[in-house]
Amino acid sequence: MAIEAGNETGGHRRIRLGMVGGGQGAFIGSVHRIAFRIDDQFELVAGALSSEPGRAKASAKELGIAADRAYGSFEEMARAEAARPDGIEAVSIVTPNHMHGPVAKAFLAAGIHVICDKPLTTTVTEAEELAALVQKTGKVFVVTHNYAGYPMIRQARAMVASGDLGEIRLVQAEYLQDWLTERLEATGQKQAAWRTDPARSGAGGCIGDIGTHAYHLACFVSGLQLDELLAQLSTFVPGRLLDDDVQILLRWKGGAKGMLWASQVAVGNENGLKLRVHGTKGGLEWAQSDPNYLWFTPYGQPKQLLTRAGAGALPEAGRVSRIPSGHPEGYLEGFATIYAEAARAIRAAAAGVEPDPAVIYPTVHDGLAGMKFIDAAVKSSAANGAWVRVG
Amino acid sequence: MAIEAGNETGGHRRIRLGMVGGGQGAFIGSVHRIAFRIDDQFELVAGALSSEPGRAKASAKELGIAADRAYGSFEEMARAEAARPDGIEAVSIVTPNHMHGPVAKAFLAAGIHVICDKPLTTTVTEAEELAALVQKTGKVFVVTHNYAGYPMIRQARAMVASGDLGEIRLVQAEYLQDWLTERLEATGQKQAAWRTDPARSGAGGCIGDIGTHAYHLACFVSGLQLDELLAQLSTFVPGRLLDDDVQILLRWKGGAKGMLWASQVAVGNENGLKLRVHGTKGGLEWAQSDPNYLWFTPYGQPKQLLTRAGAGALPEAGRVSRIPSGHPEGYLEGFATIYAEAARAIRAAAAGVEPDPAVIYPTVHDGLAGMKFIDAAVKSSAANGAWVRVG
Amino acid sequence: MAIEAGNETGGHRRIRLGMVGGGQGAFIGSVHRIAFRIDDQFELVAGALSSEPGRAKASAKELGIAADRAYGSFEEMARAEAARPDGIEAVSIVTPNHMHGPVAKAFLAAGIHVICDKPLTTTVTEAEELAALVQKTGKVFVVTHNYAGYPMIRQARAMVASGDLGEIRLVQAEYLQDWLTERLEATGQKQAAWRTDPARSGAGGCIGDIGTHAYHLACFVSGLQLDELLAQLSTFVPGRLLDDDVQILLRWKGGAKGMLWASQVAVGNENGLKLRVHGTKGGLEWAQSDPNYLWFTPYGQPKQLLTRAGAGALPEAGRVSRIPSGHPEGYLEGFATIYAEAARAIRAAAAGVEPDPAVIYPTVHDGLAGMKFIDAAVKSSAANGAWVRVG
Amino acid sequence: MAIEAGNETGGHRRIRLGMVGGGQGAFIGSVHRIAFRIDDQFELVAGALSSEPGRAKASAKELGIAADRAYGSFEEMARAEAARPDGIEAVSIVTPNHMHGPVAKAFLAAGIHVICDKPLTTTVTEAEELAALVQKTGKVFVVTHNYAGYPMIRQARAMVASGDLGEIRLVQAEYLQDWLTERLEATGQKQAAWRTDPARSGAGGCIGDIGTHAYHLACFVSGLQLDELLAQLSTFVPGRLLDDDVQILLRWKGGAKGMLWASQVAVGNENGLKLRVHGTKGGLEWAQSDPNYLWFTPYGQPKQLLTRAGAGALPEAGRVSRIPSGHPEGYLEGFATIYAEAARAIRAAAAGVEPDPAVIYPTVHDGLAGMKFIDAAVKSSAANGAWVRVG
Ligand SMILES: NC(=O)c1ccc[n+]([C@@H]2O[C@H](COP(=O)([O-])OP(=O)(O)OC[C@H]3O[C@@H](n4cnc5c(N)ncnc54)[C@H](O)[C@@H]3O)[C@@H](O)[C@H]2O)c1
Ligand SMILES: NC(=O)c1ccc[n+]([C@@H]2O[C@H](COP(=O)([O-])OP(=O)(O)OC[C@H]3O[C@@H](n4cnc5c(N)ncnc54)[C@H](O)[C@@H]3O)[C@@H](O)[C@H]2O)c1
Ligand SMILES: NC(=O)c1ccc[n+]([C@@H]2O[C@H](COP(=O)([O-])OP(=O)(O)OC[C@H]3O[C@@H](n4cnc5c(N)ncnc54)[C@H](O)[C@@H]3O)[C@@H](O)[C@H]2O)c1
Ligand SMILES: NC(=O)c1ccc[n+]([C@@H]2O[C@H](COP(=O)([O-])OP(=O)(O)OC[C@H]3O[C@@H](n4cnc5c(N)ncnc54)[C@H](O)[C@@H]3O)[C@@H](O)[C@H]2O)c1
Repeated sequence: MAIEAGNETGGHRRIRLGMVGGGQGAFIGSVHRIAFRIDDQFELVAGALSSEPGRAKASAKELGIAADRAYGSFEEMARAEAARPDGIEAVSIVTPNHMHGPVAKAFLAAGIHVICDKPLTTTVTEAEELAALVQKTGKVFVVTHNYAGYPMIRQARAMVASGDLGEIRLVQAEYLQDWLTERLEATGQKQAAWRTDPARSGAGGCIGDIGTHAYHLACFVSGLQLDELLAQLSTFVPGRLLDDDVQILLRWKGGAKGMLWASQVAVGNENGLKLRVHGTKGGLEWAQSDPNYLWFTPYGQPKQLLTRAGAGALPEAGRVSRIPSGHPEGYLEGFATIYAEAARAIRAAAAGVEPDPAVIYPTVHDGLAGMKFIDAAVKSSAANGAWVRVG
Repeated sequence: MAIEAGNETGGHRRIRLGMVGGGQGAFIGSVHRIAFRIDDQFELVAGALSSEPGRAKASAKELGIAADRAYGSFEEMARAEAARPDGIEAVSIVTPNHMHGPVAKAFLAAGIHVICDKPLTTTVTEAEELAALVQKTGKVFVVTHNYAGYPMIRQARAMVASGDLGEIRLVQAEYLQDWLTERLEATGQKQAAWRTDPARSGAGGCIGDIGTHAYHLACFVSGLQLDELLAQLSTFVPGRLLDDDVQILLRWKGGAKGMLWASQVAVGNENGLKLRVHGTKGGLEWAQSDPNYLWFTPYGQPKQLLTRAGAGALPEAGRVSRIPSGHPEGYLEGFATIYAEAARAIRAAAAGVEPDPAVIYPTVHDGLAGMKFIDAAVKSSAANGAWVRVG
Repeated sequence: MAIEAGNETGGHRRIRLGMVGGGQGAFIGSVHRIAFRIDDQFELVAGALSSEPGRAKASAKELGIAADRAYGSFEEMARAEAARPDGIEAVSIVTPNHMHGPVAKAFLAAGIHVICDKPLTTTVTEAEELAALVQKTGKVFVVTHNYAGYPMIRQARAMVASGDLGEIRLVQAEYLQDWLTERLEATGQKQAAWRTDPARSGAGGCIGDIGTHAYHLACFVSGLQLDELLAQLSTFVPGRLLDDDVQILLRWKGGAKGMLWASQVAVGNENGLKLRVHGTKGGLEWAQSDPNYLWFTPYGQPKQLLTRAGAGALPEAGRVSRIPSGHPEGYLEGFATIYAEAARAIRAAAAGVEPDPAVIYPTVHDGLAGMKFIDAAVKSSAANGAWVRVG
Repeated sequence: MAIEAGNETGGHRRIRLGMVGGGQGAFIGSVHRIAFRIDDQFELVAGALSSEPGRAKASAKELGIAADRAYGSFEEMARAEAARPDGIEAVSIVTPNHMHGPVAKAFLAAGIHVICDKPLTTTVTEAEELAALVQKTGKVFVVTHNYAGYPMIRQARAMVASGDLGEIRLVQAEYLQDWLTERLEATGQKQAAWRTDPARSGAGGCIGDIGTHAYHLACFVSGLQLDELLAQLSTFVPGRLLDDDVQILLRWKGGAKGMLWASQVAVGNENGLKLRVHGTKGGLEWAQSDPNYLWFTPYGQPKQLLTRAGAGALPEAGRVSRIPSGHPEGYLEGFATIYAEAARAIRAAAAGVEPDPAVIYPTVHDGLAGMKFIDAAVKSSAANGAWVRVG
């Protein structure tokens, strides 16, 4: 029973946070709110919570946001908050994809740190602009590739980095869902509607929505960079405007190979994100459905099932773990870790220092890499599945 | 992708909460704090966080509790808070077992609702006094048998209640750990030390610490009451003062049978709480290590793996679930549900109404039942494993 | 890819075998036949395959047994075969329980080795007589506690014996089925009918049918002997004449404890035999449903999943394994191993030597121990669950 | 407890069988021998068991083959056996790949039925010649794609065929091993040596050795035919002459998509053959490591875990199942089913009738399809991963 749950503020003032998107009926906004409450580093004090001003204000009221900080638009919010002495220090962006770029730019320009959901934008160009703006402003920019917050993913990354797997040969990722097996968007379901609409989702459907998570995870754990890919994007559901299944061959720099399969029509899968890495000396396997476990298979030795905070857990996993082994942490805790890391980075920025090197979070560059991945995959598929160089 | 995460206050003011125990280096206190933050129903404003006044205050400071509400003793806290117009409405008690009863009495007497960890007290008599005091004061009293907060446990309970299993024949529970395989208490480890000390733990070691959780879960899901038990309590580690392994035969009222095994020396088990229920028409199986799943096996039909918020999920599970199926919720979310239910009960009490009948939480009576269970098991074992009537 | 499949005769003549029971419509007889064919050590040349002479002969014909060796009764068969120069060397007894003793005695008396299914007899007395007769005749006597043939069970036994688990503290066994959840015997189903009939099954139902398997396995792996037990036998199905559920507390010689649960009404379980052993240094867990795996959990180290013929497999497992790891062996192969061991013992007996010490099979003494176990459990239960000394 | 184990000859004479390959130290020959003994339909009476005449004869002696039928070469054997009145009716070919074609041709030409291991030959041309010869001679020709013998694979095939999955969209196969992670062939290990030698293995290494199994399984279950593929074949181990990892994108006729990954360097995998099929109405998932289970996930309903011979098992699975559910059958039983089906086909041929339509086995056409698959994959990979039409 390792007892180290100490991810509380330790007397620090909580960081003042605003949110764009995430109003009534939204999905990921409330996840972000739980996530940042878990470690208590942020306080939600302002919001432009909906594209519809009325709903934005009603939502803010429900969340206990003061009326004068319940904004009808993000532009107004960026302006007003930047002007307040007690204005927000950071903003969370949880709008559909097409509203990431414009919102992020507005807040960066206003000198406010940004925590933005994925995919970063809807085009590579917009992503590059954002990366440049981050560079210019020096603000902290965190992309919520939340799966990078799971302790066993940190463990996996550390094991690869320390050479436990030897030289990496194979990196295989999959992310399988089935919620779009039928034409849900035709029923008016909100989350399905924008995700299948190129104007709001971008050029990719499934590839952008979940393929980018799988891709980020593969890079995050393996430490590799992609060289080339070849993709077949499919739209299985008649009438749908974007891909709902994605199959990709990967050629990593340095010679490793891999495949990535993402699907929203793979019946029987709820949220099946899975990663396998094989090297000359060992293998790793992790599945999001049971995230407290990590299979480690050193070549020629018995298979090991590593558990979060259990025997063999590395400091890299321990520092993002809250409760003893055997007490499962889940999706929300992994998400919370992204916020805890963001808080550390923001506090360091406020203090004018570099954050502790142990602090890791997906950056605007990871977000940009995701956009290049989408772009390459869409191009490859349009060329009947041809090899396309990435990045 | 069912999207119903709405366990936020909906505009309500957060309930003012105090905490006794849970200071620096403590285990479950920080779990309680994460748990109540998740659904944002409580605000921690006062505390007597340690038996040692200095540590109590330092801990309070770290948690952002105002200096004048960082108390050196729980008696002082009960008195002072009761006197404040903005005094706490509820207190969380997260001290070792022997300090549950005294603290709970003090706060009940001061007119403050109580959320108390398990086991309820160290003796049946003290538990009965507490039950009487709850009755007299009319205060809300919640025991944090947190496993009752897991959605799939709610699902299981609802399925049994609705007759999906037919008449119950067998209820088997186990709760296995291995952290006391060696004499950890001799190293000075805090949590091991008091748990193996009769003066602080009570007459039971393992039986009180985790056996009561398994017992509560068995009752909670099956809806049955225990008639008789026969126990063999063992102390495997030389020099240990209390049992570290417990094996019990159960005779439920109405004719069902069962076994309960709890161990803290079952090497290879981190926190292996498991429940199996078999009736004339079907069976259920649930394991805390992967809490988002519930096996349902209707007799003569294929086995079904029910998933949290997945197909077949009942409203009883849905109302305590925060995120879509496939996104694992864990221990902290289950714990959070106990707090969310407590908040509903406290708000109802404040409004002078009964809570919604859907609201369920372990009460002082469940706590008392747990004490009777410990008492009977200890007596049975002392009588070389004889049948003892419970309750 | 370890490639050692060499369990063939190596030029030896196959042992001439007879069978009693196992005619048309019987269950385990055909399992025995597949089992002994797998390693090709036996040749079936004679049989009294049914209690009904006509069926016995028809069955023999189907199996290619010569007409003059298709007997109408086992007495006739024992007599005739003993008289033939090419008479059977061994007999397999696959009749219901009450016909094990009489048949075994007849063949032992005729100087023929015996392979007999479990439970050994229907009474302890008859079992003791059989043990005495084996002693007197010096014949090989094998009881088909077939689960002792699984490679990972051999592995487990060897690991315990070599001290990998330290001193054993806990031995927990369960054997769960659900095929008698309803009153199948009332439909005339053959296997259910005799198993629930005290005249043919003996004083125990579930305890004899599957409880003895679980008990044998627990002893076989742990190397422990039972000191005392306390049992509650239940008959859940109205009208049934024998127990269909068995729950037992175990006190092993030397201080280890344990529980044994066997049930034929545990809905959702097909043939759920499971064993867990925990010592001061490590734990083991094995389940018959996936028999090629063995969990090994050395204290304070990562959990290991050992696989049949995989890394870490010991010679004790390797010598009873036929195909490379990852190619699942199952129930029939485990059963075949009992026959392969029997063949080794019989060949050694024929040569007048001791078999290789590596050869292990359940003996008449194991069968007798099983009968004492049944007897003690029945007595304990009849005394309302009292402690009864075993053996 | 479904008790139908009846796959015995029912009084039939056993079919006289010869074997080419499978001598001392060989792998799959002894598997074939166990397999055909399980259901007792064949009797091994002749053999040319090794490329080396001395070893061939010694091996034959060990197997109890009469000296005059222990041949030094397959040519001699085909000739001599064809001339005997009691000559073999069928031959099993278990030589390395390059010796399948020549041997098969010799026996077909001699009027003897053939059971041949995979891949069929080393070139498409040779495979086509064989198919033509089968057509011409009318002999039974069985390819031991043994995984098609697993009951749950039969179940899966029947479910797809009956429309339980709706229209198929996705067929994903993988076959992962790790035994060639290092350069085992350099140590002289026999099985590794020829498998990595183009002269004996053919143009494909991993793709031919295990990729063809995965491909056959995908076709067998889905009922689909492949239209195009795109492959990247890798050789990760320095100095190796053939591919040890294969990643393929699949385009099935009718619009379904898929991926196939086969590897012999995926550390942590022993023999990880896995198939997933997803349609408009449901999904299936099966893994060879636990072959008695099949996941069935009807869209919008709870996941079902179907078990061999359990509730929901179809007749197509039942007829190839030997023992009750919960008693695991494994690799050898699945292999045995191929032989049992072969026996049915051979007996029908002897009787001059068509076999029962329920009889299914991989034919020379499946073998030919496998060769076209290898050929296309090798070509695609050589063209830097280009789309190649199959067949
Ligand atoms: N990290 C993850 O795992 C994860 C999971 C789900 C969604 N997401 C991402 O989160 C984002 C939101 O997804 P969702 O499923 O919550 O969508 P949603 O449709 O449920 O919610 C989007 C919210 O944004 C609001 N919004 C839209 N335009 C706005 C504007 N101009 N100003 C203010 N608010 C505006 C909407 O009113 C709504 O409240 C997407 O980019 C998605 O890709 C990430
Ligand atoms: N619900 C669960 O699953 C769960 C899990 C763990 C512990 N528990 C229970 O929680 C309680 C605490 O366990 P723990 O493991 O956190 O113990 P701990 O020793 O880690 O913490 C106990 C805390 O109580 C404080 N304390 C002791 N006496 C006090 C007093 N008089 N006034 C104020 N503070 C005092 C200590 O200083 C310490 O901070 C126990 O009753 C235990 O059974 C429940
Ligand atoms: N090792 C195991 O796992 C296992 C599994 C199943 C059964 N068994 C044991 O095997 C035995 C048989 O069980 P079953 O399920 O096959 O029963 P069954 O009823 O299917 O078969 C019993 C056979 O014995 C024959 N028989 C009865 N009396 C006979 C007589 N006097 N002479 C000749 N034949 C006679 C019957 O005609 C029938 O063919 C039982 O003792 C049972 O406990 C063991
Ligand atoms: N169905 C399956 O799952 C499976 C599994 C393993 C192997 N195989 C196939 O089985 C075949 C054999 O593989 P293996 O691993 O057993 O190889 P192996 O090297 O172990 O055995 C090959 C045998 O063939 C003999 N042989 C070679 N040339 C011969 C000749 N001219 N005449 C007579 N005998 C000859 C060798 O002496 C040896 O006994 C291969 O084609 C392989 O692809 C199939």
